[in-house]
Amino acid sequence: MSTAAPRRTGQDQLWSVDEHLEDILATVRPLEPIELQLPDAQGCVLVDDVTVPVSLPPFDNSSMDGYAVRVADVAGASEEFPAALDVVGDIAAGQPADLLYVGPGQAARIMTGAPLPAGAEAVVPVEWTDGGLGEGPVSGMRARSLAPEQASGHVRVYRPAEARAHVRAKGSDVKAGDRALDAGTVLGPPQIALLAAIGRGAVRVRPRPRVVVMSTGSELVQPGEELGSGQIYDSNSFALTAAARDAGAIAYRVGAVADDADTLRSTIEDQLVRADLVVTTGGVSVGAYDVVKEALEHVGDEDEAGSGVEFRKLAMQPGKPQGFGSIGPDHIPLLALPGNPVSSYVSFELFVRPAIRALMGLEDVHRPTTRAKLVADKALTSPKGRRQFLRATYADGTVRPVGGAGSHLVAALAHADSLIVVPEDVESVEPGADVEVVLLG
Amino acid sequence: MSTAAPRRTGQDQLWSVDEHLEDILATVRPLEPIELQLPDAQGCVLVDDVTVPVSLPPFDNSSMDGYAVRVADVAGASEEFPAALDVVGDIAAGQPADLLYVGPGQAARIMTGAPLPAGAEAVVPVEWTDGGLGEGPVSGMRARSLAPEQASGHVRVYRPAEARAHVRAKGSDVKAGDRALDAGTVLGPPQIALLAAIGRGAVRVRPRPRVVVMSTGSELVQPGEELGSGQIYDSNSFALTAAARDAGAIAYRVGAVADDADTLRSTIEDQLVRADLVVTTGGVSVGAYDVVKEALEHVGDEDEAGSGVEFRKLAMQPGKPQGFGSIGPDHIPLLALPGNPVSSYVSFELFVRPAIRALMGLEDVHRPTTRAKLVADKALTSPKGRRQFLRATYADGTVRPVGGAGSHLVAALAHADSLIVVPEDVESVEPGADVEVVLLG
Repeated sequence: MSTAAPRRTGQDQLWSVDEHLEDILATVRPLEPIELQLPDAQGCVLVDDVTVPVSLPPFDNSSMDGYAVRVADVAGASEEFPAALDVVGDIAAGQPADLLYVGPGQAARIMTGAPLPAGAEAVVPVEWTDGGLGEGPVSGMRARSLAPEQASGHVRVYRPAEARAHVRAKGSDVKAGDRALDAGTVLGPPQIALLAAIGRGAVRVRPRPRVVVMSTGSELVQPGEELGSGQIYDSNSFALTAAARDAGAIAYRVGAVADDADTLRSTIEDQLVRADLVVTTGGVSVGAYDVVKEALEHVGDEDEAGSGVEFRKLAMQPGKPQGFGSIGPDHIPLLALPGNPVSSYVSFELFVRPAIRALMGLEDVHRPTTRAKLVADKALTSPKGRRQFLRATYADGTVRPVGGAGSHLVAALAHADSLIVVPEDVESVEPGADVEVVLLG
Repeated sequence: MSTAAPRRTGQDQLWSVDEHLEDILATVRPLEPIELQLPDAQGCVLVDDVTVPVSLPPFDNSSMDGYAVRVADVAGASEEFPAALDVVGDIAAGQPADLLYVGPGQAARIMTGAPLPAGAEAVVPVEWTDGGLGEGPVSGMRARSLAPEQASGHVRVYRPAEARAHVRAKGSDVKAGDRALDAGTVLGPPQIALLAAIGRGAVRVRPRPRVVVMSTGSELVQPGEELGSGQIYDSNSFALTAAARDAGAIAYRVGAVADDADTLRSTIEDQLVRADLVVTTGGVSVGAYDVVKEALEHVGDEDEAGSGVEFRKLAMQPGKPQGFGSIGPDHIPLLALPGNPVSSYVSFELFVRPAIRALMGLEDVHRPTTRAKLVADKALTSPKGRRQFLRATYADGTVRPVGGAGSHLVAALAHADSLIVVPEDVESVEPGADVEVVLLG
């Protein structure tokens, strides 16, 4: 456990949102790097600087379909006075550079990407030639398989070419020894393109964190089943598993553990083998059946599951009761979120998402924030001393609350794309005021 | 095939970027809906309006851990003159609403989310009581398993409560019959939360498209292997598979098919069984070994693979040669992109990504665009009559080109986050000018 945040003792001490987050981020370390095949590394963070092993392109090659020629042979060529050259053969992409030699008065038919043959100094596009047909400029070549004779014979060239015209020089993209990508780069499609292009089939990255999401509560029923009296559907395990995936994790859902401390403890222990982070919902408040707290709060043997989880009250709304610590012999971090669907979702955004992104080794773990003008029918009210997060929709510099402040309004959450942040010392925000907004993206 | 775009004939006709895109989007239809389990529906588009089958919450319940009481019994209660009530038992979340009855002078200990028992009118938080200990206000309850005696005996209440205080009313979140989500909604975590909360374990959505990505070229070698003379590494199949995944598809990579028309045709036919869209790279230009064109261009039996692919020249840079059509008995759409890594990547962004998102049934298939001020050392030049796309980095309303216009500069692509668009009729853009920018996100 970290000592970065000021230590609080007792459950009556209020932690600020920032103190709790700071404690989490000071504790959660990036996962150990592993070697992954390129397609599996998508979205991961590169651990080492990557250097270019071989220059790109690795050889001078043609940027056009046309003819490789000597500059002197086509000097002054025009439609009226074309240069006539002997075609010594075809060079297709993938053929070796030493296949052909272009001597004076000669040309090689060459395809885009094929190596420039020795002797040749430039490429003239096929559209500047008669393509060997003797009937003026052509628009392209016929397929070799259909017209093999065009790889020999003569070609008329109607325009001159400067040295290196339509030649992509070896190393003109990247040179051997250049830095291709820096450690810390997130591997999106263009970075994967570059790694493949320089021949890297595998890279060392931080793996996607495996996040086990577990809801607790004897009242919870799986969606699709029948509700009994006093029961509700489990939504947290579905929502937070989806949110963990969105954040970049490999997420495992463990639905609805009943409110029994022994069952919960053994379920968590069973899950540790596939967890880099455990997230629970429910059972963290001041009730007599708050099973997460009961199961994990005791301080025992360091090697015992549940040895280091601390339960706190946070100066926020929603999401006041929170637990954080580490469990099991490998000290897997665990975040215990409150059970109300909106409280748990907001808590996920504020605390779990940054923890997942810290495990991934990302530098920027936070959602973007902006300032916006509040559009509302009446002033927003917020409890003194608590940082309030209100679901809202953001557009073009304005933000509009959706639904009320009640932590159970999951319907409003589904129509929100942002959170309005009302600071601890503000109890009322007038329409038109400038407010901080977290963009949920 | 569509007739929305003006038909062009012959390969010398130039299609505009917009005409080509319009033709693709007029042809590609959203995939047929399927029923998916909620976790599998993440990121998919909802096909039907979803109505709330049961009000949420489905019963009046407590928003606090505390005591369910009658209002009259706690009227005027204070720390000096507490109300003393008989505790008739515990109501935990998940227990039925008719478990207990709260009569005059009685209270039931109640947990957050538990149903309000008959007879009770309000909940007082445990912090407003002595928790049954007789020693002034407490900060919470002890676990039932450790202190079962607290579920009975007496409790002192130190503050009055209004009717319905700390009670979440049945239907206060959503009411049975309300519209929960509209058809067309993209199912992110909050929407999945709502669907689970209303008991929907499965939903009808448009599935993720299965996209087969295939690179062609006899010069291509798998990254990690040794390069021979005239060979380069295959990067397109890796890059576009990653990009297809990013766009929401299930992507299958088929690496580096050699430049042989029969091999290519049979490879494509083999892949059709798992394809909603086929993307090829390379082999679409005017050379004698342009195998994609050779294999797919002929017009034959409608039921034969390759019957309906048309190859075009587009008024754009990079990415001039493009193919589009449908293949096989199921008329699977196929986009044939040029082989240069940057050309193929830009083509993917402009044409394939919108096609994937159209298959998903998304309304907004395009990347966001913005206007920005060009920051550059010298004017950008662009060929007349071609729409040019330049890799760039965007920040705070300014945009800066990365690398040159050469279509082979894959290194620059890996450091770009946006594309500068230079319209067809513009040949030069001065530093400081206002330009259109596609944000690659």
